[in-house]
Amino acid sequence: MPTRRQLADAIRVLSMDAIEKAHSGHPGAPLGMADMAEALWRHAFRHNPANPAWADRDRFVLSNGHASMLLYSLLHLTGYDLPMEEIRNFRQLASRTPGHPEYGVTPGVDISTGPLGQGISSAVGMALAERLLASAFNRPGHIIVDHRTWCFCGDGCLMEGVSSEACSLAGTWGLGRLIVLYDSNGISIDGDVSGWFGEDVAARYRAYGWQVIGPVDGHDCDSLDRAIAEAKADEKHPTLIICRTHIGYGSPKTDSASCHGSPLGEDACAAARAAYGWKEPPFVVPEDIRKEWDAREKGAEAEAAWNNAFAEYEKAYPDLAAEFRRRMAGRLPDGWAKTVEDMVQSAIAAGEKLATRKASQKALDYLVAALPELLGGSADLTGSVCTLTSHSERFNAAEMTGNHISYGVREFGMSCILNGIALHGGFIPYAGTFMSFSDQAKNALRLAAIMQVRAVWVFTHDSIGVGEDGPTHQPVEQFVALRTMPGMKLWRPCDTVETAVAWKRAISDGGPACLALSRQTLPYYSRAAAQVADIEKGGYVLRDCEAVPEIILIATGSEVALAEAAWAKLSGEGYRVRVVSMPCAEIFDAQSDVWKEHVLPHGVRRRIAIEAASPDYWWKYVGLDGRVIGMSMFGASAPAGEVAEKFGFTASHVIEEAHRLLAQ
Amino acid sequence: MPTRRQLADAIRVLSMDAIEKAHSGHPGAPLGMADMAEALWRHAFRHNPANPAWADRDRFVLSNGHASMLLYSLLHLTGYDLPMEEIRNFRQLASRTPGHPEYGVTPGVDISTGPLGQGISSAVGMALAERLLASAFNRPGHIIVDHRTWCFCGDGCLMEGVSSEACSLAGTWGLGRLIVLYDSNGISIDGDVSGWFGEDVAARYRAYGWQVIGPVDGHDCDSLDRAIAEAKADEKHPTLIICRTHIGYGSPKTDSASCHGSPLGEDACAAARAAYGWKEPPFVVPEDIRKEWDAREKGAEAEAAWNNAFAEYEKAYPDLAAEFRRRMAGRLPDGWAKTVEDMVQSAIAAGEKLATRKASQKALDYLVAALPELLGGSADLTGSVCTLTSHSERFNAAEMTGNHISYGVREFGMSCILNGIALHGGFIPYAGTFMSFSDQAKNALRLAAIMQVRAVWVFTHDSIGVGEDGPTHQPVEQFVALRTMPGMKLWRPCDTVETAVAWKRAISDGGPACLALSRQTLPYYSRAAAQVADIEKGGYVLRDCEAVPEIILIATGSEVALAEAAWAKLSGEGYRVRVVSMPCAEIFDAQSDVWKEHVLPHGVRRRIAIEAASPDYWWKYVGLDGRVIGMSMFGASAPAGEVAEKFGFTASHVIEEAHRLLAQ
Repeated sequence: MPTRRQLADAIRVLSMDAIEKAHSGHPGAPLGMADMAEALWRHAFRHNPANPAWADRDRFVLSNGHASMLLYSLLHLTGYDLPMEEIRNFRQLASRTPGHPEYGVTPGVDISTGPLGQGISSAVGMALAERLLASAFNRPGHIIVDHRTWCFCGDGCLMEGVSSEACSLAGTWGLGRLIVLYDSNGISIDGDVSGWFGEDVAARYRAYGWQVIGPVDGHDCDSLDRAIAEAKADEKHPTLIICRTHIGYGSPKTDSASCHGSPLGEDACAAARAAYGWKEPPFVVPEDIRKEWDAREKGAEAEAAWNNAFAEYEKAYPDLAAEFRRRMAGRLPDGWAKTVEDMVQSAIAAGEKLATRKASQKALDYLVAALPELLGGSADLTGSVCTLTSHSERFNAAEMTGNHISYGVREFGMSCILNGIALHGGFIPYAGTFMSFSDQAKNALRLAAIMQVRAVWVFTHDSIGVGEDGPTHQPVEQFVALRTMPGMKLWRPCDTVETAVAWKRAISDGGPACLALSRQTLPYYSRAAAQVADIEKGGYVLRDCEAVPEIILIATGSEVALAEAAWAKLSGEGYRVRVVSMPCAEIFDAQSDVWKEHVLPHGVRRRIAIEAASPDYWWKYVGLDGRVIGMSMFGASAPAGEVAEKFGFTASHVIEEAHRLLAQ
Repeated sequence: MPTRRQLADAIRVLSMDAIEKAHSGHPGAPLGMADMAEALWRHAFRHNPANPAWADRDRFVLSNGHASMLLYSLLHLTGYDLPMEEIRNFRQLASRTPGHPEYGVTPGVDISTGPLGQGISSAVGMALAERLLASAFNRPGHIIVDHRTWCFCGDGCLMEGVSSEACSLAGTWGLGRLIVLYDSNGISIDGDVSGWFGEDVAARYRAYGWQVIGPVDGHDCDSLDRAIAEAKADEKHPTLIICRTHIGYGSPKTDSASCHGSPLGEDACAAARAAYGWKEPPFVVPEDIRKEWDAREKGAEAEAAWNNAFAEYEKAYPDLAAEFRRRMAGRLPDGWAKTVEDMVQSAIAAGEKLATRKASQKALDYLVAALPELLGGSADLTGSVCTLTSHSERFNAAEMTGNHISYGVREFGMSCILNGIALHGGFIPYAGTFMSFSDQAKNALRLAAIMQVRAVWVFTHDSIGVGEDGPTHQPVEQFVALRTMPGMKLWRPCDTVETAVAWKRAISDGGPACLALSRQTLPYYSRAAAQVADIEKGGYVLRDCEAVPEIILIATGSEVALAEAAWAKLSGEGYRVRVVSMPCAEIFDAQSDVWKEHVLPHGVRRRIAIEAASPDYWWKYVGLDGRVIGMSMFGASAPAGEVAEKFGFTASHVIEEAHRLLAQ
């Protein structure tokens, strides 16, 4: 019977071997955290390797994602579909073992991590989703949502401010099912952390309202067991277990930053093997160790027990059980098509002039009523970003009720939490802040795009139309930053109807989406039914002429009004003018060549794009012979109309540019 | 003789009046913080209204920038060049009183604020700069650097994670000259903060190593005086004074979020005036109150005393005094032209194939030796980003020595600190992290661009060339996000020579700059002397043909190698091919039309841009008839060569595309 240390050493050796073979990777953390991993994964972690999608499994977040080989070793050893061949292919093209854990690539990986601090922040979202789902679905004697969120993190994760944001919320919300094991090894890439991380982490986490345990010896399995038991016992507070460990444990580079991010090298590996007393050649795990690690039987039993409980639940509450299945599968309800049709038609029927942030609120009124999985919120701007609807109820942490969360002034933490909620399943999160502050959340949006989670960001106050708040609050380069993020969709609707369609697609498309919405009131545009349908193509002809146009005006959002005014004037002068509204350029780009040629005929080279944002994105559509009316500098503080005038966002300026182009 | 409360009320009334007149603004905070402002600005703050550029003045940071009218009232009342007409023009076009404080617009505004959390974070940089400058220039009996950094902040600033990052560093570094007065009014936009900010802020700041004073009554001037005296007395720890206040103090909307961001309205203003016992009409300040506020005489005396001390210093240490003047004026040293010429020529002479991150280190070796004001650092990636030179000394907080700082894993906090250092004066800060993590710092980069501070960001690992670390570590959309940021310059050099020139310009140009540098080794390109000079034009002809080219290949950084290889092959086939290297597109755009036409003749429409990043930026230069070889999706984890192959970054793919275009 192998010792627990030997079981942990299996992780160490597999990690070393894979990193050596790849000539690339981070051995320090897997070697340091192997005992923590053994304590958690063999004794407390509730999962079924045969079904990584089991709804009530515990969730695991490796926040220090560079320790990926730790996780891959665990998945391999406990019996996930991750054979030794994949371990041998660590960091190779098309392997299931990429350099950092990637959601959707590796069975058992609950979230992509790598950018430090975001894993632990998203874990807060997962733990919140679990409690909200529990309160929505559990019934007396029928506890079907009953799992924990476990997170490993390192010093770097706790230096990053985003973890401060999310962990402060976790404490305030009392998320007792969240347990973080902090690998406190005192070393980061630049060396001994005392020069840049002198703070008292335990005191900081207590200040957030967490239970803090330790420091415990992170290489002593009994201490770890006791700490984990203590953590589980307190369900009122999230827990931080501070585990003192040695980076690169057992290797000659122990306690040195040099083992953080490079292979140990042949000699150091041999020395480590000798220190562990490990006799096997690379990539060989002795049968007795393999047997002790194998979690398939225990996992199958755990899930079977849950399945039985769920069957009882289903008998007692058939509707709830069906709803639970639907939500966890991410299926939209049967009435979805009608809901969104009603939503769009009501916008058409009303024909209102409205700020698109308010149009968004009207759309959300339909959606929140129809989709109990919608979980809204804002970064302390609820009234301004219009995310609260008449069907919204403010989140109450004590009761775990409500569907609209005040995240405080924490755009980045909020966005990580959205990712965690979406990854947990059972919810479609959305939340709002000002477009300028999408900057703060940018890397979380990027992870949302990489993982293709279903979450919606509501970014209002989307241009110089903000007016008096001035340049720090007026986005300029944010649109292009979001549009060029692969897999992210940015919608910038021009009126109530486009806003409704944007929401429809944001929810239906399945991946992440951002909405760019105006602070100021915008016109309403009449459309034929076919034009309404065309909105979903991302770009379409809103106003046109007979025959082939001489000039095409392309615009989005608030600037469509300028294009339309110019169209009216120029058409009156006898020019053949087309207005293209392009609420989602990424979706337009994905259309057929036929559609793109129909909207923007290749031969028509007189083109003007108008958007109160960086012009550089639009050259793609107007070419070397076109013009862009955009913002090449930061905005200014003044009433919105005056700012628009100052920067040339007037119909007369568009007309002037058009005349100039038409004269060529 | 007016009471101190009446003096504070002058701020309240001016703020209300200006906001009413503008029909826009944030009255809650100025009304709530007026007593804090009176206590600090009339009793402890050391400044001279006649000279906002006095080197040894105290610095003031209004981190909750929406309280701008508080600051404008203070500047007006104490005697800065901010007449009542400007107060009346609050939030109007071209006024000196924009919606949020803007550095460079208003005399006495030391930093632009508005995005919460960044002001306090930059204040850490200012306080650090003060201590480093003190240790560099003060001499026994000659203390010429001897001031404090004061900061006001609100709940929102302390919710934002960036302040956690910077304040943790301030504690670790022991910045005792930093004093923050925290306006703890318990209200943020969504209401009572207890639902989203339940943490124990005092305990958190103690955990960072700060002195925490209070809570004190933020409306009691004696308590405030005592707290400020206590704060000043401890020079070993930064201080947080927790001031319990009432938002909208004295108005009928006291303690309500409704007074945060909208004018109070006529009735509420009248009621507040009555509550204050304020008899004057709008924009009138009684003479006795004006007199008490006027700080010009005291300020002139303070500066005169310092000038005398500096004159003594100058006698004792003429060279040091001259150097101090030079550095505070931001003037580069006399030998600068020779230094950069040597730097560029040495790169040419060596002709090395080198990763541009290593080329950057070689350039920095020249610069750090020549410029004592260079203050380097990295976000825990010092070895990887190559910011440490042979002339660098690691920062020692106890001694306040060194010129290279380990900021820990805190990209955003680090960047705010860079802004603060640059704004303080006496230093040119630079710091590095991976290009992917420029995301985390984005809004601080934006503020750097808005303020045009001189600071340089070194972003290495700039593409899929990162290889095994995978998509989270491989930038794609970051270049376009930085290039489209007005006033920011992104350099992406292709070899050692372009890297040296990039550094030259980054330092000389005066504003902020980013360098995008490769992890992997890049070729060296031979150039004529004129071509070396042309690098400074941002885009230039690196390889050419006889007569007018049939096709132009535009590339940056690592992809210039592909363009050159394609040029060699296609030229051999008899095609007329040009290679344009475009290390800084923003600078190229600013060149004369003649230069732009010379490099990219309008008539040559066969153009291919090649960059391992989002393609969308490049349509600007290739037009509707060109091609872009870019990254339309996220990267992958594998050895760099295989990733490049997978995504088409090979010479053969460029040649293939060129053939296709040439056949048209």
